[in-house]
Amino acid sequence: MVSTWTLLEVLSVGLGRRLLGRPLRSSEGAREQISPIEGLSALSLDALTSVAYGPQALLVALGAGGLMALRLAPWISVAIVGLLGLLVASYMQVIVAYPGGGGAYAVARANLGRRLSLLAGAALIVDYTLTVAVSISAGVESVTSAYPSLAPYTVPACVGVLTVITFLNLRGLAEGARAFLVPTLAFIIVILGIIVVGLVHPLDPGLHQPGAAQVSTHALQSVGLLLVLQAFSAGCSALTGVEAIANGVPLFRKPRVTRARQTELMLGILLAAMLLGLAALVQRFRVEPRTGDAVLNQIVGYAIGRGWAFDAISLLVMLVLALAANTSFGGLPVLASLLAEDHRLPHAFAIRGDRLVFGSGIWVLGLLSAVLLVATGGNTNALIPLFAIGVFTGFTLAQAGMVRHWLSGRQSGWRWRAVINAIGATASGISTVIFVVTKFREGAWVVVVAVPLLILLFVRVHTYYRSVAAELRLGTVPAKPRRGRTLVVVPFTDISRLTREALSQALSMGDEVFAVTVVFAEDDARRVAVEQEWQRWDPGVPLVVLRSQYHSVARPLLRYIGSLKPSPTRRVVMLIPILVPRRFWHRALHNHLDLVLSAALRRRRHVVVARLTLPLHDE
Amino acid sequence: MVSTWTLLEVLSVGLGRRLLGRPLRSSEGAREQISPIEGLSALSLDALTSVAYGPQALLVALGAGGLMALRLAPWISVAIVGLLGLLVASYMQVIVAYPGGGGAYAVARANLGRRLSLLAGAALIVDYTLTVAVSISAGVESVTSAYPSLAPYTVPACVGVLTVITFLNLRGLAEGARAFLVPTLAFIIVILGIIVVGLVHPLDPGLHQPGAAQVSTHALQSVGLLLVLQAFSAGCSALTGVEAIANGVPLFRKPRVTRARQTELMLGILLAAMLLGLAALVQRFRVEPRTGDAVLNQIVGYAIGRGWAFDAISLLVMLVLALAANTSFGGLPVLASLLAEDHRLPHAFAIRGDRLVFGSGIWVLGLLSAVLLVATGGNTNALIPLFAIGVFTGFTLAQAGMVRHWLSGRQSGWRWRAVINAIGATASGISTVIFVVTKFREGAWVVVVAVPLLILLFVRVHTYYRSVAAELRLGTVPAKPRRGRTLVVVPFTDISRLTREALSQALSMGDEVFAVTVVFAEDDARRVAVEQEWQRWDPGVPLVVLRSQYHSVARPLLRYIGSLKPSPTRRVVMLIPILVPRRFWHRALHNHLDLVLSAALRRRRHVVVARLTLPLHDE
Repeated sequence: MVSTWTLLEVLSVGLGRRLLGRPLRSSEGAREQISPIEGLSALSLDALTSVAYGPQALLVALGAGGLMALRLAPWISVAIVGLLGLLVASYMQVIVAYPGGGGAYAVARANLGRRLSLLAGAALIVDYTLTVAVSISAGVESVTSAYPSLAPYTVPACVGVLTVITFLNLRGLAEGARAFLVPTLAFIIVILGIIVVGLVHPLDPGLHQPGAAQVSTHALQSVGLLLVLQAFSAGCSALTGVEAIANGVPLFRKPRVTRARQTELMLGILLAAMLLGLAALVQRFRVEPRTGDAVLNQIVGYAIGRGWAFDAISLLVMLVLALAANTSFGGLPVLASLLAEDHRLPHAFAIRGDRLVFGSGIWVLGLLSAVLLVATGGNTNALIPLFAIGVFTGFTLAQAGMVRHWLSGRQSGWRWRAVINAIGATASGISTVIFVVTKFREGAWVVVVAVPLLILLFVRVHTYYRSVAAELRLGTVPAKPRRGRTLVVVPFTDISRLTREALSQALSMGDEVFAVTVVFAEDDARRVAVEQEWQRWDPGVPLVVLRSQYHSVARPLLRYIGSLKPSPTRRVVMLIPILVPRRFWHRALHNHLDLVLSAALRRRRHVVVARLTLPLHDE
Repeated sequence: MVSTWTLLEVLSVGLGRRLLGRPLRSSEGAREQISPIEGLSALSLDALTSVAYGPQALLVALGAGGLMALRLAPWISVAIVGLLGLLVASYMQVIVAYPGGGGAYAVARANLGRRLSLLAGAALIVDYTLTVAVSISAGVESVTSAYPSLAPYTVPACVGVLTVITFLNLRGLAEGARAFLVPTLAFIIVILGIIVVGLVHPLDPGLHQPGAAQVSTHALQSVGLLLVLQAFSAGCSALTGVEAIANGVPLFRKPRVTRARQTELMLGILLAAMLLGLAALVQRFRVEPRTGDAVLNQIVGYAIGRGWAFDAISLLVMLVLALAANTSFGGLPVLASLLAEDHRLPHAFAIRGDRLVFGSGIWVLGLLSAVLLVATGGNTNALIPLFAIGVFTGFTLAQAGMVRHWLSGRQSGWRWRAVINAIGATASGISTVIFVVTKFREGAWVVVVAVPLLILLFVRVHTYYRSVAAELRLGTVPAKPRRGRTLVVVPFTDISRLTREALSQALSMGDEVFAVTVVFAEDDARRVAVEQEWQRWDPGVPLVVLRSQYHSVARPLLRYIGSLKPSPTRRVVMLIPILVPRRFWHRALHNHLDLVLSAALRRRRHVVVARLTLPLHDE
């Protein structure tokens, strides 16, 4: 019983077709069939671009321990790449098991029961939102590093980029994967090229970097375990997005599973190469985290100097990060539509709009990300602690679900497959716990609060829909409808063409019709005038003059409706005549009785509020 | 043809009765009958309290010419008091001539023709708004002078005070005049007391005042005429409000004219005494304008020291200034209602709400003042240049109208009466020109732009209402209404109690009924299921299944309505069944097809959108 109508249509009518483009036929939504390389741009951009903030998050966390602590960066990077290997191997198995496109929510729902699937759903929603916020803020930071004078405009710039992405998605990104191919490949080639140049023959290794070092001068004598774990969990933000390919298997050209696995493997190798390469360069150039200068920018600066190419690369990084934010706009609305179909979110989320996109999900994702960006001032380092918890909760649930899947199915090779997924689940589970513990005070508590609230929302929405279905007795055959008498009440102020129009309509649909007008208690002259005018007109409809003790028109009308005692055999229609001016701002010059009465009669049974409109041709 | 219905009712329903109080009967609005002393508090508070900012505005203007220029302050004050005498004499005559309560708009409309009355109306609207903004900002400044640590909260404090005043006025200030009597008398006594103490035996004449002097150190050798005129026009802000008594003559106890004239005379004497006394103290203590310290506060400090009494007086000044802002809330809504009755403003302004106040005018005044306060950061000195132009335009038009009045009426003593008003008109006219010229660049241009825009608004609104009246053929007897056939279309998604309810209603009011559902093109299974369910139910109403090429429900419904070819003999009612949950936030879980279709069918003739609501008893 997915209700197919939504407030979104009102919003979209408001935005107008010009902004959103012509409606698309359902047949135009034919799914694209993509190749492994295209899969990288459509589904892995989020993962690939996380190299723009992952290493920086690692260094910032280590920087709290002083310069000595920074020496640990390469080793922690190796550990992160190890975890990446596990995850890639695990998700290559998810692809085999759920060629229909799973994602943590689907895997958990199939294997782990309702509760854990809701946890997965909530974690993913949090994560999609954070992906958008982090990608955009990191992208903008990349530009403000190149042009520090733009730094004060960080928040407006973030919101601006977000607005553009949101509107493009409301239009529907028909081009999708292919349009993103060129910037994705350019980004991969540039990063790998920088790594090669930086390792072989850096052009400006003595470059003086702008900004102030963010390294604690109170260097610790011994670097504690906590610091290492904090750095590890911060660096793991580079692994977000490796699950996206498994979610999108149906997008691939046949044989789907093979191609999707190829893509996942390619992503793993590229991401590992970039992370290890950047770690080596961090070590070589002794890069420190600095305010106002992204770590990736510093590395690019050492490798090729701060010339025009540097600026161009900053812009490219910002572009691909903005495109990476777009990945979430593909993900969250689909997830929300699955939840809505399960009656876990308002049904509006399951409705495709004119442009065949899940508009409500796009709106909500845009608004939530905007709140995050504004609340943190567009500061990537403030967002990172919130990030990755959701992703790794999803990782853990998906892998755990896969273990169950192999254990129950017992297909060929189920033993070693279950082992791989079990290791993946354990590693990501431990990582999740590390994240929550180490980042709790820096902001992770927001996630720890938000996820249960979302689960509560899912549960409450479900309960509500069930109670409504019971009250409507959905699924049973209702009694037959019965005809009754209809009284039509037409309120009016002046006798005019509009009154005539309304009375004609009323006579056409009612067994009895009353024209009603309200006169203020003290205004006897007005009452006499109306009665005389009515006699002169003689429209064949009885006139009822209501005297108002109060200076309100709605109140006496409501009391009059009540006095008619509406019932199934004696139904009342309040037919309100409304002038509709040609220009919408002229509406301020007319009354809005229909709104007042609709609101007041909303919970009154056997009373219908009807609106007769008379369009004006004024100038 | 004042339309008696308004969006305000929707707003007020939203605010709820708890906040605004129970509705009042019209009979409860019996006019208060006040004495001359009460008249001072009800109608003259604005004028009396302007001594809190007038002398300061004078000194700030003179300060630009250096310390020497400040010596001119007493002489300019004497000139201002002279103008005050002229105005008081003039308005005592207005009271005689317009005992019905005139105001510049009424006097100008009766004597100077439509155009000048619109100028008076626009000038007064600008002025009422500025009175609110200036009174509140000066009141808050009085407190921040006493407690400088509160200075950063100036804007929130201003908006807070404004919000309280606005809501009190929406409730209706039934107590009115009497409630204000005590603070008004306290204010008069305190100011006169300070003057006496200050002149006879100041308690702390050597007090070191906080804040930095706002006097230009580039002292001019010769003080130019321009500077003097600027100071004069700034100081004249102390004269605003002397017209209010003449506007409110009907409020007085009989004999009204005598009592109103007594009040006007009392106001003139008190205001003159306070202005001259303060000018003498400014001279004696060599007061200079200072940032963060109001001139009145400095004087109080010299006279009685900065002890607890000083703090108490600051709070009293703030209280009476807030009450003075309230004067405008009595004035602007009445003026707006007069303009609305003349079809110069939206008719909504002429409607008294449940609490017998002109709610729309109160809302608009509150919003405009809030914009002014936020835009100027709650800075009195930034508002003063905009102020007084409107008042003095009103003064000029009222006096000029009175000259016409005497010349045409030729009652006894018309000669010398005309002469007094002519001198008043000339003096205020010259002052107005001085204001505009001297303050133009400091902000007066805002007024010079706003007044013509308001007049344009009045003209356009009038034209619009005239064209609507012509199109409705108001005043002629329309043709008799005619009955036709009615087709009722009931859209639905699922067969349930709600569908049954809607079909019963439809059968009760239509000659033909169609139940319509929309199925997406690709979803043949759904179409078959609906048709089978319908056969099983067999409600006696034909089922129409619309196939949608688009992912939209509204679009095929609108096309279907069009295909029925609505006409005066074949009217179409779209009856939309709506579930109404008990809690309003549950509405987000339901569809809003009624809003979409209402908007889309707004300008379609012979089609009525009707809403059948089914209240839910969920949980």
